[in-house]
Amino acid sequence: MNYKNVDDYIQSNLDNSLAELAKLCAVPSIAAQNLNLDECAEMVAQMLQARGFQTEIMPSGGAPVVYAERKGKADKTLLFYNHYDVQPPEPLDLWESPPFEATRRDGKVYARGVSDDKGHFVSRLFALDALLAEDGELPCNVKFVVEGEEEISSVHLPAFIEKHAEKLAADACVWEFGYTDPDDKPIQILGMRGICYVQLDVELLSQDVHSGVGGSIFPNAAWRLVWALSTLKDKDERILIPGHYDNVVPPTEFDRQIAAARPYMGEEYRQRYGVKEFLRGTNSQPELLLQEVMEPTCTICGLTSGYQGEGSKTVLPAKASAKVDFRLVPNQTPEEVLKNLRAHLDAQGFDDVKVTFLGGEAPGRCDPNDPFIQLVVNTAEEVYGWPQQMVPMSGGSGPNHAFLHHLKLPIAVAGMGYPGGQVHAPNENIREDLYVKATRHVARVVREFAEG
Amino acid sequence: MNYKNVDDYIQSNLDNSLAELAKLCAVPSIAAQNLNLDECAEMVAQMLQARGFQTEIMPSGGAPVVYAERKGKADKTLLFYNHYDVQPPEPLDLWESPPFEATRRDGKVYARGVSDDKGHFVSRLFALDALLAEDGELPCNVKFVVEGEEEISSVHLPAFIEKHAEKLAADACVWEFGYTDPDDKPIQILGMRGICYVQLDVELLSQDVHSGVGGSIFPNAAWRLVWALSTLKDKDERILIPGHYDNVVPPTEFDRQIAAARPYMGEEYRQRYGVKEFLRGTNSQPELLLQEVMEPTCTICGLTSGYQGEGSKTVLPAKASAKVDFRLVPNQTPEEVLKNLRAHLDAQGFDDVKVTFLGGEAPGRCDPNDPFIQLVVNTAEEVYGWPQQMVPMSGGSGPNHAFLHHLKLPIAVAGMGYPGGQVHAPNENIREDLYVKATRHVARVVREFAEG
Repeated sequence: MNYKNVDDYIQSNLDNSLAELAKLCAVPSIAAQNLNLDECAEMVAQMLQARGFQTEIMPSGGAPVVYAERKGKADKTLLFYNHYDVQPPEPLDLWESPPFEATRRDGKVYARGVSDDKGHFVSRLFALDALLAEDGELPCNVKFVVEGEEEISSVHLPAFIEKHAEKLAADACVWEFGYTDPDDKPIQILGMRGICYVQLDVELLSQDVHSGVGGSIFPNAAWRLVWALSTLKDKDERILIPGHYDNVVPPTEFDRQIAAARPYMGEEYRQRYGVKEFLRGTNSQPELLLQEVMEPTCTICGLTSGYQGEGSKTVLPAKASAKVDFRLVPNQTPEEVLKNLRAHLDAQGFDDVKVTFLGGEAPGRCDPNDPFIQLVVNTAEEVYGWPQQMVPMSGGSGPNHAFLHHLKLPIAVAGMGYPGGQVHAPNENIREDLYVKATRHVARVVREFAEG
Repeated sequence: MNYKNVDDYIQSNLDNSLAELAKLCAVPSIAAQNLNLDECAEMVAQMLQARGFQTEIMPSGGAPVVYAERKGKADKTLLFYNHYDVQPPEPLDLWESPPFEATRRDGKVYARGVSDDKGHFVSRLFALDALLAEDGELPCNVKFVVEGEEEISSVHLPAFIEKHAEKLAADACVWEFGYTDPDDKPIQILGMRGICYVQLDVELLSQDVHSGVGGSIFPNAAWRLVWALSTLKDKDERILIPGHYDNVVPPTEFDRQIAAARPYMGEEYRQRYGVKEFLRGTNSQPELLLQEVMEPTCTICGLTSGYQGEGSKTVLPAKASAKVDFRLVPNQTPEEVLKNLRAHLDAQGFDDVKVTFLGGEAPGRCDPNDPFIQLVVNTAEEVYGWPQQMVPMSGGSGPNHAFLHHLKLPIAVAGMGYPGGQVHAPNENIREDLYVKATRHVARVVREFAEG
């Protein structure tokens, strides 16, 4: 097929699309802090209405889900999954331009959410605009599910999808993200790790106490927390919770093959993050990638207790907390991890450590031979010069399991992420050239899917 | 001796003395924030000059030390140690009257520093006023050392004392504080624990990383800190640093006897601090008091790493820190603890944990049979109805070691502190009746010391 008109439209309307993206990025829709979610959902719905979609802002139990549909020429349905919530922008002092004022400089656009995930959502719309500009109608039926809790583990989405499975019925799904590797080669991932995110809280006194009084007779919440944490994982990175590895499926031979074909990322990581040595000394491919994306983790994401300012304050803290995330691989489940964690803490004598479940998602994988996956892989070549390169899993997590399980959809990724994108970090950004390419790729995906 | 005139003077001049105290409390001389220290030192010097003292405002390397001396009848010298700095007043919203406006209500006076230590300093002056009013001269030579860094571990005082040992020479020392127990019985402490306050820092990445990327391949500063901390002390409160207990002198039989005579504080602590169970299940006297004040501690005073806000953020922290204070008992020293800590961390493979020394003081004890201690203990009886009750040590720390070591002085406490005094907390206060008693007691101490 000929994509000249589509590609020309995208090139000549880039400024308009980035202006629309900037407007969306100006809404600090931070799910973790329950900020501006209704307002952002409303804006998303209006953007879809402007493309002739019928929209509904649907309750989910938490932040609303924007659902939209528009009929197209072919009787096939493509479902786009995106999210309108973003990560908190902190630490603010590391941003070179204000996080909620999208700023173009040096061929990039900087803002919180500009890549994850507002840029992807606006790029999908931009791709549809290009198709509509040429044909006056969409090549096939298109549906959108745009949620507002992706950054807090899509707390309510799986139940929403199960409940509305009939309404959301489709033939394939384009996932909320996609990315290129350091060589600008596009990537296809065959699944995502799951997650079980918990907060551990210890509170043993009604107020902080002078450490000269309480130090040797009062229980110390910070110590209890440290001791409890130290029973979860040993220095060799082995998770010590009984049963944690029971359901883990190891990488297949195909996983090893496609991992071996990916470039070694060690140097990139060393430079970008200042890593001196990788865990367990891993230093070659495919081992580093398989370790990165196909192993269960237990990560302390945050610690807080007592005095944290400059200098010394002799205080014995009344309370202490930790945030911990467990990344899960098939066939672990968040429910099983939570249950095993509680049982382990109790067995170790830490019934004073309260566990609060902050969100979880099961892991999920796709069949690399599915025709839709193959289509997305191959349509990339005309845009990027390379078909998408397959990767066994993403190290990150998402609600893909719900789409796989309740909607039985093949799920493919396509998008503008790249290694310098600072997703979840200060100075989150997209490259304008990759924004254009992702849009061109998705336009092809929609049309080839419709006509395939 | 007859103290009728002295006691009458104190009773009838109470309002004047509290007015002078209010004026001193109005200066927010906060050492931790380096606020108003020179101004407060100047006011202290003027107050001493008004009593005929020769004063010097002497450099210490930090906040100046006010030194003062006045000759008296007997050729013996009593040294008063006090401090003019105070703790920060925060949290401000919990104060019932402004922290730097001394407010009398219900027989108490409320202000930051009204007890610790400005009330004690002004009460010493008030006792001397009473003696001067009767005799026109002091019973003996009197010296004052009033420092401005007590609330930040008297950083420069030990060196100051060593340097000026000749000038400060005396025969006995009255310490900056003193207090009564819940039954209004006065207390004599026979020493103070030392302290070694450190910060542990781990920094392994140049920035925080998405935990989905780094979780299974990047080192995690929070984990390294938790593992390092967990090697310092076990769940049974045993400090695991090799050599930590080598120089510890256990309680003597006399310590056990005097501790056994003190009331059991368990119920008081349960109510005030919400403690459910004391460490190691200790629940009786003298064990609870001996454990409280005569054991080395290792207290986590603060923890900080990564994301600490509401909800979840999937981040792998680039750095993590802990504040840790070690309370020391004779004959431990901060230098030895610091050296052993570093060696221990290295031996355990934690050379990535940086140790920063934030302050230290050696422990120090007095001989309970020293005639000066006995004099202070016994002169209390006429004022309080009880001689001072001996306690083996204070659980807190102070620069007493410098006075013991460099000046070879017996050190006794006497003062107006009481369990409801909220020292270091909002609504710090003194009881007026105890202010009067402390003043009467100190007047007796000075005269009996001179004539003894």
